[in-house]
Amino acid sequence: MFRYRMIVEYDGSQYVGWQRQENGPSVQGAIEKAILSASGDVVSIRGAGRTDSGVHAMGQVVHADLSREWSPFKLQNALNAHLRLAGERVAILDVTSASEFFDARFSALRRHYLYRIISRRAPLALEAGKAWFVAKTMDHEVMHAAAQTLVGKHDFTTFRSAHCQANSPVRTLDRLDVTRSGDLIEIRATAQSFLHNQIRSFAGTLKLAGEGRWTPDDVRAALEARDRKACGPVAPPDGLYFMQVDYPDVIVDRRQETETTDDDDDLS
Amino acid sequence: MFRYRMIVEYDGSQYVGWQRQENGPSVQGAIEKAILSASGDVVSIRGAGRTDSGVHAMGQVVHADLSREWSPFKLQNALNAHLRLAGERVAILDVTSASEFFDARFSALRRHYLYRIISRRAPLALEAGKAWFVAKTMDHEVMHAAAQTLVGKHDFTTFRSAHCQANSPVRTLDRLDVTRSGDLIEIRATAQSFLHNQIRSFAGTLKLAGEGRWTPDDVRAALEARDRKACGPVAPPDGLYFMQVDYPDVIVDRRQETETTDDDDDLS
Repeated sequence: MFRYRMIVEYDGSQYVGWQRQENGPSVQGAIEKAILSASGDVVSIRGAGRTDSGVHAMGQVVHADLSREWSPFKLQNALNAHLRLAGERVAILDVTSASEFFDARFSALRRHYLYRIISRRAPLALEAGKAWFVAKTMDHEVMHAAAQTLVGKHDFTTFRSAHCQANSPVRTLDRLDVTRSGDLIEIRATAQSFLHNQIRSFAGTLKLAGEGRWTPDDVRAALEARDRKACGPVAPPDGLYFMQVDYPDVIVDRRQETETTDDDDDLS
Repeated sequence: MFRYRMIVEYDGSQYVGWQRQENGPSVQGAIEKAILSASGDVVSIRGAGRTDSGVHAMGQVVHADLSREWSPFKLQNALNAHLRLAGERVAILDVTSASEFFDARFSALRRHYLYRIISRRAPLALEAGKAWFVAKTMDHEVMHAAAQTLVGKHDFTTFRSAHCQANSPVRTLDRLDVTRSGDLIEIRATAQSFLHNQIRSFAGTLKLAGEGRWTPDDVRAALEARDRKACGPVAPPDGLYFMQVDYPDVIVDRRQETETTDDDDDLS
């Protein structure tokens, strides 16, 4: 077996999500089909994050085991050609050979997400499906202040989906920054892993702060309530982008790592 | 009659272009239908630029004459609601009352366009239809140097479509800047008016310079040839965005203006 690491971009709007499912086309399925067409190998690939339906990616990371050795350059071109032929909105940005100890999901040190909000009066024409349209005026500085109450190691029960399968609601949020450029408000989130719907729950709650309906202290109180009902409305998937995954320079053995790393899913 | 000036954003990919035509849906038609639905008025609106099929806009400017007075705020909301209901990819970003002497096309002092190229190995997933995908490596500094040979007042016969209806091929190009940010190369063009396909002809020619196939001197020679056959391949509409139109602070009478301003179309 020859393992390859791939960096993947996709427009999530036409997919049921990253993961292969019965109810429709998935990004995982699209890439697995392209691998089958290119190589004849029936594979099951693993992604660093199991993004929901409608969530986009600029830097999803995947590993795949193929039966023969490929030049990464040729493999990338072959997969992109098959994805394009199949009309998929998926592109393989990079392919590298990887050690057998590299696991796209379990070797991940940090995951980086971006949530985009466009705050203006007019609905979105060019950015439809690519950002959350919010007609109200928002104060991004209040949003940023509120976000800082969430950074650090906390029980994030308030901000995870009722369907979240993680064993523990405790996560360490490294970064949650809110910036603005014109009508565009960007929320950048970094953590080793996230709970299901965590970033969309943050975005929906921070919107309330941006509109002046919640203070940063209200956001802190929601966190401390450890109660799903204390969360603001979950923001739509359209604005969420899986941006980047960091890995150790020396990829450790997966069996060692599962002992030190929380193995819960990243279902933001 | 009450005249209104509107700033319009659209995703051009599903339209035959700005102008109402027999062969399919137009942006002009979509807005005129929304005006009819909102006001009952059958109107013929005028845009500052007659963009081609597939060309996008972030700041097309339009004027429309309505039979009764509206609050600009209410008119904007009503038009956006009707556009949304009709499934149009058109949004009215701003509405203001305008004097009868304001003409979106003939009062324009300067038009600003952006052409976006994404230069990378992988096809576009998130930006499909929103930029020109170029698989080759491009040197944007050479492109910028080549672009400077086109700035100024010239006979642009080389860079206009055979279908261009303008009386004169002479235009004054105020600005043609090429910048890069990562994979994204942006060409920004400003002039009082452009010839049909002028910016897409520039973009296709500058691509040859960026790839090292043409030198800046070759681009200058193409301009000086004043021959359509000397032009590089015309770039696709996907990358072109009509960004902004500048008008005089005091809008002059249209009848005065047509004497001093070239009244040719802006069909970039």
